[in-house]
Amino acid sequence: MHFVIIGGDAAGMSAASRAKRNQPALDITVLEQTADVSYSACNMPYNIADPERRIDDLIVRTAEAFREKQGINLLTNSRVTAIDATGKTLSVDRDGRSETICYDRLLIATGAVPIVPDLPGFELPGVLALKSLEQGRAIKDYLVARQVKDVLIIGMGYIALEMCEALRQRGYGVQMIKPRKQLLPWMDRPLAQTVQQTLDSNGVTLRLGESVQDIASANGRICARTEDNHIEVDMVLTAIGVKPCSHLAQSAGLELGVQGAIAVDRQMRTSDPAIYAAGDCADAYHVVSQKRTWIPLALRANRTGWAVADHLCGKDVDLPGVAGTAVFKVFDMQVARTGLNRAEALDAGFTPQTVTITANSRSGHYPGGSPVQVHVVGDQKSGRLLGAQMVGRESVAHRINAAAVALHAKMTVAQFAQCDLAYAPPFGGVWDPLLIASNQLLKKL
Amino acid sequence: MHFVIIGGDAAGMSAASRAKRNQPALDITVLEQTADVSYSACNMPYNIADPERRIDDLIVRTAEAFREKQGINLLTNSRVTAIDATGKTLSVDRDGRSETICYDRLLIATGAVPIVPDLPGFELPGVLALKSLEQGRAIKDYLVARQVKDVLIIGMGYIALEMCEALRQRGYGVQMIKPRKQLLPWMDRPLAQTVQQTLDSNGVTLRLGESVQDIASANGRICARTEDNHIEVDMVLTAIGVKPCSHLAQSAGLELGVQGAIAVDRQMRTSDPAIYAAGDCADAYHVVSQKRTWIPLALRANRTGWAVADHLCGKDVDLPGVAGTAVFKVFDMQVARTGLNRAEALDAGFTPQTVTITANSRSGHYPGGSPVQVHVVGDQKSGRLLGAQMVGRESVAHRINAAAVALHAKMTVAQFAQCDLAYAPPFGGVWDPLLIASNQLLKKL
Repeated sequence: MHFVIIGGDAAGMSAASRAKRNQPALDITVLEQTADVSYSACNMPYNIADPERRIDDLIVRTAEAFREKQGINLLTNSRVTAIDATGKTLSVDRDGRSETICYDRLLIATGAVPIVPDLPGFELPGVLALKSLEQGRAIKDYLVARQVKDVLIIGMGYIALEMCEALRQRGYGVQMIKPRKQLLPWMDRPLAQTVQQTLDSNGVTLRLGESVQDIASANGRICARTEDNHIEVDMVLTAIGVKPCSHLAQSAGLELGVQGAIAVDRQMRTSDPAIYAAGDCADAYHVVSQKRTWIPLALRANRTGWAVADHLCGKDVDLPGVAGTAVFKVFDMQVARTGLNRAEALDAGFTPQTVTITANSRSGHYPGGSPVQVHVVGDQKSGRLLGAQMVGRESVAHRINAAAVALHAKMTVAQFAQCDLAYAPPFGGVWDPLLIASNQLLKKL
Repeated sequence: MHFVIIGGDAAGMSAASRAKRNQPALDITVLEQTADVSYSACNMPYNIADPERRIDDLIVRTAEAFREKQGINLLTNSRVTAIDATGKTLSVDRDGRSETICYDRLLIATGAVPIVPDLPGFELPGVLALKSLEQGRAIKDYLVARQVKDVLIIGMGYIALEMCEALRQRGYGVQMIKPRKQLLPWMDRPLAQTVQQTLDSNGVTLRLGESVQDIASANGRICARTEDNHIEVDMVLTAIGVKPCSHLAQSAGLELGVQGAIAVDRQMRTSDPAIYAAGDCADAYHVVSQKRTWIPLALRANRTGWAVADHLCGKDVDLPGVAGTAVFKVFDMQVARTGLNRAEALDAGFTPQTVTITANSRSGHYPGGSPVQVHVVGDQKSGRLLGAQMVGRESVAHRINAAAVALHAKMTVAQFAQCDLAYAPPFGGVWDPLLIASNQLLKKL
């Protein structure tokens, strides 16, 4: 059996490695369009923050290691241009030459690509995006080669915010711009305000409610024009979000799910029984709403890669799905979420009630604590916990996981409020911030 | 209705306050044998560590505030000497005078008391224990008044270890002694060894496998004699554990549970329908074993105080019990556990399998990470997660809660391993240490 994988990043290489462990004799080919496989994309902002580190430090395992140590036929610079699902063949462009590769089972692990606005000037040098290692390298080189002093970041999602911190850390001036008036619109307002204050106090200029109309070169600088302003900077970073890279799947007639992601079942099978999809290009079930969702994150990519390998090798696989748990760091703030927010809960047919509280990260009697803001969402009808959000200087990134597990277990707020969580003064009050919030929320349910 | 509470600490005052909120007209009397109510006992080691802070800083709410702002009849220096469950009366010693107080409903919240060995010399001045605020005050005063230079701590539980850190922080020499050869015998060996190395590197002398036979005064110092040694120090701290303060309940004919704690049901009722027990003097159901257990901790004390108040006022109460989640800090190490260890799992009738792994507290590509050791216990037969332990310099105290919630939800290891936990490079690897351990454990189940 020939198992072919399109895409040599988290999902693809996880699947390849695990399938080889499961069945060492399995014939596996991985087709990767770039020269890089298996690197830590999530670490790119932190690598870029440090001019002393090489971007190639982020490579976890080289293509050679996959080939020689694991016996995986890994072909880099090999771009799949079409899938023939009937004939079970792929058209592949390898260094300009066209080839046809046959498969018995196929995994599409093509990931996601940054959305770049279809506006004049976004193709100019100095207008960059960050998704691939190649793009990370380009940003890092550009900053030094062009002696960049200031940067405009288009977008204010987590990659934009992580890059904002990285660039400020290197001393660059940073402006951020986006059309909507609200920072982190998915987040409860008081929590989002804390993040906004953090950006303010770190000297970041936020242009909320402004849209870039076009970009042009101007005296060796780059000029982004909005409705009312001309913004001149040395570099522009577009980080307005990503979209699933599903055009190959679509052309092959596979069913797409939400937001254009490839629709998969709990075994990661697409609508074609010989084809799996995994990672950022595939959709998922949400454990709270049980509806299809698209939340492209690294853990899911790794996990679904494993799941494909296991299912392919005859093991039972039945993935519960995602809770939408995510965390990012922006300056000294940790920002975390899991599950649904109020709007998503309404969309999913729940009757949400919410509570926002502020607690201390440590016991009030223990020195060095800081505020932790907690927002929790529960369902009026069923009493279920639906989601949680947190912002704070410490402990937030790990505290959120207690709520995430509760969502997987479909706990009610009352059940979650009774959980026996850890307490010692250096690490929190007797009542964990999540328990305080849950106790408050119970009064509304 | 007259609701009387014996004991003005966490459980007692939580019950009194919440009952007053539930039913402002309720007639509540609290009888507290000391002068102090509602102080943070868990913070005492950290307060003792700082000579500039007064021990009274730990008082959360004064007796006056309970009396005047909350309308609770709070009687301090009032020691209950007997409960007449038939006549529903209490004999009370108030400043040397005997009184009789009638109750309709009674809550016994007498807490726990330190175990002091019945050996010669333990009554000497300079041989101290830490449980009440009064005892904390005595230690703090003694350290200064006697110009203490070195201390012998008898016992190596979490209070002993917290006090060890506090005393080292103030520059005192610290020796610790206990009869058993193993530090933290409930803990997986590699994790306990990390704690032991931390004590070593902080200049603490550990006398494992040595027993104090007697204590005597010697030239203004205190001499503790073991089988082979004379240990001369300026102060001895006994911290060999606590026992439930249940003698009043026992004399009144109430049923006792494990380790002499007062047996209660899921509504915190004792064997007498008019009498509740809550806090450190009462037992609990363990959510993993479903058996009675006695794990006296602050969150449980507060929670059971609330539960008594709610049940008394006619609300539905059905406490699931405890998971035995606990954390403590010793120098730069965080030590946490939840659920059962291997021996407890065997005792409870499970067929335990265990795994111990070491992961990084941050992404390997992100600076500043440190090792996190994780030990997980699962049941061969049912596949259930039974417990987890962790040691590390950061994140451990909050990570443990994800496992605690999984125990409450009675998740299998497979289900827990599929949980969508938060990931960002500053806070961990793609696979959370608990997930890595669970994935390894799955291979054994």
